[in-house]
Amino acid sequence: MGEQRIDLNADLGEAFGAWTLGDDDALLELITSANVACGFHAGDPTVLRRTCERAAERGVVIGAQVGYNDLAGFGRRFLDVEPHELTNDVLYQLGALEAFARVAGTQVRYVKPHGALYNAIVHHEAQAEAVVEAVLRYDPTLPVLGLPGSVWLATAEAAGLTTVPEAFADRAYTPEGTLVSRREDGAVLHDVDHVAERSVRMATHREVVAVDGSLVEVLAGSVCVHGDSEGAVAMAAAVRRGLEEAGVRVAPFVGGDVA
Amino acid sequence: MGEQRIDLNADLGEAFGAWTLGDDDALLELITSANVACGFHAGDPTVLRRTCERAAERGVVIGAQVGYNDLAGFGRRFLDVEPHELTNDVLYQLGALEAFARVAGTQVRYVKPHGALYNAIVHHEAQAEAVVEAVLRYDPTLPVLGLPGSVWLATAEAAGLTTVPEAFADRAYTPEGTLVSRREDGAVLHDVDHVAERSVRMATHREVVAVDGSLVEVLAGSVCVHGDSEGAVAMAAAVRRGLEEAGVRVAPFVGGDVA
Amino acid sequence: MGEQRIDLNADLGEAFGAWTLGDDDALLELITSANVACGFHAGDPTVLRRTCERAAERGVVIGAQVGYNDLAGFGRRFLDVEPHELTNDVLYQLGALEAFARVAGTQVRYVKPHGALYNAIVHHEAQAEAVVEAVLRYDPTLPVLGLPGSVWLATAEAAGLTTVPEAFADRAYTPEGTLVSRREDGAVLHDVDHVAERSVRMATHREVVAVDGSLVEVLAGSVCVHGDSEGAVAMAAAVRRGLEEAGVRVAPFVGGDVA
Amino acid sequence: MGEQRIDLNADLGEAFGAWTLGDDDALLELITSANVACGFHAGDPTVLRRTCERAAERGVVIGAQVGYNDLAGFGRRFLDVEPHELTNDVLYQLGALEAFARVAGTQVRYVKPHGALYNAIVHHEAQAEAVVEAVLRYDPTLPVLGLPGSVWLATAEAAGLTTVPEAFADRAYTPEGTLVSRREDGAVLHDVDHVAERSVRMATHREVVAVDGSLVEVLAGSVCVHGDSEGAVAMAAAVRRGLEEAGVRVAPFVGGDVA
Repeated sequence: MGEQRIDLNADLGEAFGAWTLGDDDALLELITSANVACGFHAGDPTVLRRTCERAAERGVVIGAQVGYNDLAGFGRRFLDVEPHELTNDVLYQLGALEAFARVAGTQVRYVKPHGALYNAIVHHEAQAEAVVEAVLRYDPTLPVLGLPGSVWLATAEAAGLTTVPEAFADRAYTPEGTLVSRREDGAVLHDVDHVAERSVRMATHREVVAVDGSLVEVLAGSVCVHGDSEGAVAMAAAVRRGLEEAGVRVAPFVGGDVA
Repeated sequence: MGEQRIDLNADLGEAFGAWTLGDDDALLELITSANVACGFHAGDPTVLRRTCERAAERGVVIGAQVGYNDLAGFGRRFLDVEPHELTNDVLYQLGALEAFARVAGTQVRYVKPHGALYNAIVHHEAQAEAVVEAVLRYDPTLPVLGLPGSVWLATAEAAGLTTVPEAFADRAYTPEGTLVSRREDGAVLHDVDHVAERSVRMATHREVVAVDGSLVEVLAGSVCVHGDSEGAVAMAAAVRRGLEEAGVRVAPFVGGDVA
Repeated sequence: MGEQRIDLNADLGEAFGAWTLGDDDALLELITSANVACGFHAGDPTVLRRTCERAAERGVVIGAQVGYNDLAGFGRRFLDVEPHELTNDVLYQLGALEAFARVAGTQVRYVKPHGALYNAIVHHEAQAEAVVEAVLRYDPTLPVLGLPGSVWLATAEAAGLTTVPEAFADRAYTPEGTLVSRREDGAVLHDVDHVAERSVRMATHREVVAVDGSLVEVLAGSVCVHGDSEGAVAMAAAVRRGLEEAGVRVAPFVGGDVA
Repeated sequence: MGEQRIDLNADLGEAFGAWTLGDDDALLELITSANVACGFHAGDPTVLRRTCERAAERGVVIGAQVGYNDLAGFGRRFLDVEPHELTNDVLYQLGALEAFARVAGTQVRYVKPHGALYNAIVHHEAQAEAVVEAVLRYDPTLPVLGLPGSVWLATAEAAGLTTVPEAFADRAYTPEGTLVSRREDGAVLHDVDHVAERSVRMATHREVVAVDGSLVEVLAGSVCVHGDSEGAVAMAAAVRRGLEEAGVRVAPFVGGDVA
């Protein structure tokens, strides 16, 4: 049996102009892959520059966190954009972020859709295909990150892209291996030790205890953590510490042997 | 004496969403270098995609027409943006346009600032340096296009960039070789044949007749034409025809022996 | 039998910055109610000012053409905005337009949603209620214009608002009195005389010939015309002329005895 | 000798979408006039609604904090907008905010320009006149707030508007009664007790100790406080407490006997 390893990803670069959001510096000490906003739902050019430079300095891999063109809604509202326009919106964001990755001496290494777009393409075939088309046109060697079982990952895989499913240590799972809806009680876990322990089990045994007590398989190339509150950063730190204490190497999925 | 040649450049890709502007298709048959808007003063992702693809199909070289972040003002209003932010605004635009040049099988080959930014950096040292800094960071082999005698070209040259001065066949020149201000009568020429003849003289003898009748030297690597009205396209067509009839080869300045 | 009268409404003020759209001046000679864009899907402050002043000069009634906050998409893409946010987006637009109506010596006299919002609230109850809530809070005496049979008009009526159904002389109707989908052949009529004749029949007999040849009732307080192309303006002119020649008085629905 | 009173004003409603800014709730317990952002430099419709409702509940007077159309720059960058367009930009903002003041059962009671616009019209005559023109057109009974000695207040006064000069208890003054530039050491005062004492002296003796120790007259109808940091709110609270302990009544300048 080989070395056990896992990637930790989080959303970064979501400040805008005079407004800050999240604690990017704290997260950059904990994660291995940064989903950097590209200016459509959040992130202005100066934020992108700084985020890419700091990520590069710490060896954190830069991914493009592409979203809907909806700054007022932070990309959290479904937008029924035409697929060919969505493809172009994603291309624009990929290129814009690439400029800052380049200036920071690195490059955009993967793609993870944001917010309502992330949720839409779990099911929305035309929009999923539109985002896949953008990645194919831009650079077909770029891996894409997303929800296991989503139309997004299935479409990407069918198109020949490398797909990386992600897991959520702080979310409850159904016996079928899907996430319990946020609308239900207990969907989000808040006990730091419990969440850390779940992340270790995901990384070492590729499984999680579902809400009914059964064990379900979780094939995750990355575990998503959050940094938008003080509690979130503490949670991310606990996950990182738990993984390291369990002997799991926390390392970028890019370049490694991902699930 | 070698072959006489000149580049013709024009602003393209300045539609936005439901709104059109100019006759890009007509211009693409006449020009050799397209200054493509990058989304800050005009141009949305779908417009950029189409403009880059059509330019590439016709062998027209793509340049980045970078501007202030002012869609409502079409980039025509001076914005006192901090230099380090301006650098990042330009980097963002360069990267965004590059994605579409890449998809079209080519790349961004030069940079020409737009509107109020173009005018500001004729004199504004800090902003001129900021744009130069962006080009240096992004790709120091990219030539930059601008007004002869401007702080912009001087700063770019001092930084080691390739500079390409442009001339205006439809603008009156002072005996010192600068443009007559638009506020003065006769600053803009409207006689198609006259303008065509001036462009030929610029390309073949590197000179123009100033408002006082004297001859002044014009070292232009490119002549700027317009396409925002029916008359403008007719003017551009006359300039192209005049140059060809005079035996001047109309060809991109990129890759050639520019002034 | 009393005087026969009908209102003609059209979308105006949809230019933005450097970009023009439609022939507002031509339309203002033909219509009696102007649905003026409010800056979210189109229209900037200077466009709104000019549009309101010209409408007021010609005695054309000003209505608020409120839309989604989506300039890049011209408000033509469904946006899944939270109802309480949609209410506030509509309030913002109502107030902004009111400033220009006030400066022009008049006021906003009715509300007509635009584009994707117009279409969404034909069925989308929560968004329909959100727009109704905005009108109720702003001024419950304002009439609202919309599609007959829509959730929007039903919700508005239930809330005590005055509702004004509109008809489309250039659209095919089903035997049930609904519009034939634009996706079907023959949904949009292009024969100017035919369209003019239909508008007269709508105004004088409150009926239209459906696609199967049957007669269906159309209770319209206003007929919608377009002005976004030369042909559209000619069509609007024919409708106006046809109505007048048939002895129908073309007059604003506001202040009159609307359907 | 009559009752001594002073107004305290602060910037509110400067959140946007997912981004928060400042502690509006804390400030609303301390101030008597709220300069509410109008959506151009900050503030979205939902933020404006909430801010107006909370201000109205607490009896805090609502003023329009109008700014440049520059969300990315938070209105802090000079924008060389044409005067007639600036007039219209201000009208748009006044109307938009008015809708929410109306829904909250009150109205916009004064105008205070924000950020770079505030600074520009200290000297920029054409822009000062443009803002005055907007207020005149919208409602010539609205008082305007600004810097003593500014072109803005002089132009407003000449046009017949009611002008209200404001003072800054936490800023150093020159012997001529102008503010010491922020670029100089000591321009901003940080000692809470000292600042509170200065505000009392401004309110009771209409004077302040300048940087050279001399006493200069300060005719202020309002004192500006800040709330964008925890320290700022503590400072505002100390100013309020100091004024009340000195027997000065803290009350809105609107409706009272302002300087």
